[in-house]
Amino acid sequence: MVGIGPGHGVGMTIEARQAMEQAQVVAGYHTYLDLVPDLIAGKEVIGSGMMQEVERCEAAVERAKSGANVAVISSGDPGIYGMAGLVLELVVKLPEALQPVVRIIPGVSAVGSVAAALGAPLMHDFAVISMSDLMTPWEVIEKRVRAAIEADFVIAIYNPKSVKRTEQIEKVREIALQHRKSTTPVGVVRSVSRPDQELVITTLDRFTEKKIDMFTTVIIGNSQTFQSGQFMITPRGYTL
Amino acid sequence: MVGIGPGHGVGMTIEARQAMEQAQVVAGYHTYLDLVPDLIAGKEVIGSGMMQEVERCEAAVERAKSGANVAVISSGDPGIYGMAGLVLELVVKLPEALQPVVRIIPGVSAVGSVAAALGAPLMHDFAVISMSDLMTPWEVIEKRVRAAIEADFVIAIYNPKSVKRTEQIEKVREIALQHRKSTTPVGVVRSVSRPDQELVITTLDRFTEKKIDMFTTVIIGNSQTFQSGQFMITPRGYTL
Repeated sequence: MVGIGPGHGVGMTIEARQAMEQAQVVAGYHTYLDLVPDLIAGKEVIGSGMMQEVERCEAAVERAKSGANVAVISSGDPGIYGMAGLVLELVVKLPEALQPVVRIIPGVSAVGSVAAALGAPLMHDFAVISMSDLMTPWEVIEKRVRAAIEADFVIAIYNPKSVKRTEQIEKVREIALQHRKSTTPVGVVRSVSRPDQELVITTLDRFTEKKIDMFTTVIIGNSQTFQSGQFMITPRGYTL
Repeated sequence: MVGIGPGHGVGMTIEARQAMEQAQVVAGYHTYLDLVPDLIAGKEVIGSGMMQEVERCEAAVERAKSGANVAVISSGDPGIYGMAGLVLELVVKLPEALQPVVRIIPGVSAVGSVAAALGAPLMHDFAVISMSDLMTPWEVIEKRVRAAIEADFVIAIYNPKSVKRTEQIEKVREIALQHRKSTTPVGVVRSVSRPDQELVITTLDRFTEKKIDMFTTVIIGNSQTFQSGQFMITPRGYTL
């Protein structure tokens, strides 16, 4: 399991690069494979094609069982809404003697890349929540949003919106406005660290007017977060 | 601002390594400087010595103002309980014309490294909370712990315990046991990815019996997290 970070070549760890070089087979979502063409050249590829995540990971585990060195890649960190859990779930279902050796090589997650691009919004306790209700009931997601807002966490939102799923992020805004100032800084970052990166620091009352899609991560500041120039900063509490 | 990741050489991003190579001055806590001796050799060093964090960052900003290329290093990610916020707070206090250019290069945070070492405990929504009450009142921390427990977040705990501060983690255990099963998996990882790494997957009722100190990160599973062999896994929700 290899995390390739935000997707530009130098955002990957040295360890991740080495693992990719040693791999005989590479599996991943085509968008991620396209980010590292030099690292997959000449290798057997288990791409997405018509395959869904579960089928792709099953195919990867099968190749590893047959002795191949397989790299399953995730953008960001495979352990944060990536493929690490799914692959491990498949592996631990196998009889122990048949389980391939699994190593998880973490990468810089979107939450870290996006925070770095915005300044320092995560300098205090934070919560990471996905808006995708494909596998999680909205009631659970909403409860988490409410809890995180009420306890003054900085909040990072993954998968904020898709073509078909547009209401969740509006609901987050509504809940947040009940407890935080309308001027609370919100960072909206799309395609972080890629050539087409779009970044804006805006405010809680207006952030959903910005372009938000599946390639976007949103960070909502806590009660102390402020904007200064191009930076969104959550103070840690030092006396300066 | 450079994140060096967990501290072994290959856990750093290529971008972070390049930034270190280009830097003329390196500032950081001595424990972190010691992790990358080859990258600081021959450079001017702003070490900790008798200096505290604020003084060290002020000195780094001063050198940058005078035109030097200064790398302020944090282990893990400078944006997650690292030095990014403090440096930016100092920089934005300066008149705009005097502000040095700041770039934040994220690294793999302890939460990511520790999760990877444990398996895949962060595959669902999670909260990151520091137990340090030096700059945050315990009431705020406790409120966040309670909110995160009640909303079934996986919880990653930084700075769980120090020589003088031992009660907080016991309080977390107590709050968690009011809402989660005593058998909920808890990962306790010390000095992740370093030669002296210690790792254990235990349960909510007993985890505070393990060795926990300032070099330890604790991850408490959510209601779905399970242990299988050497892995702690939080299912994302795929039907397998």
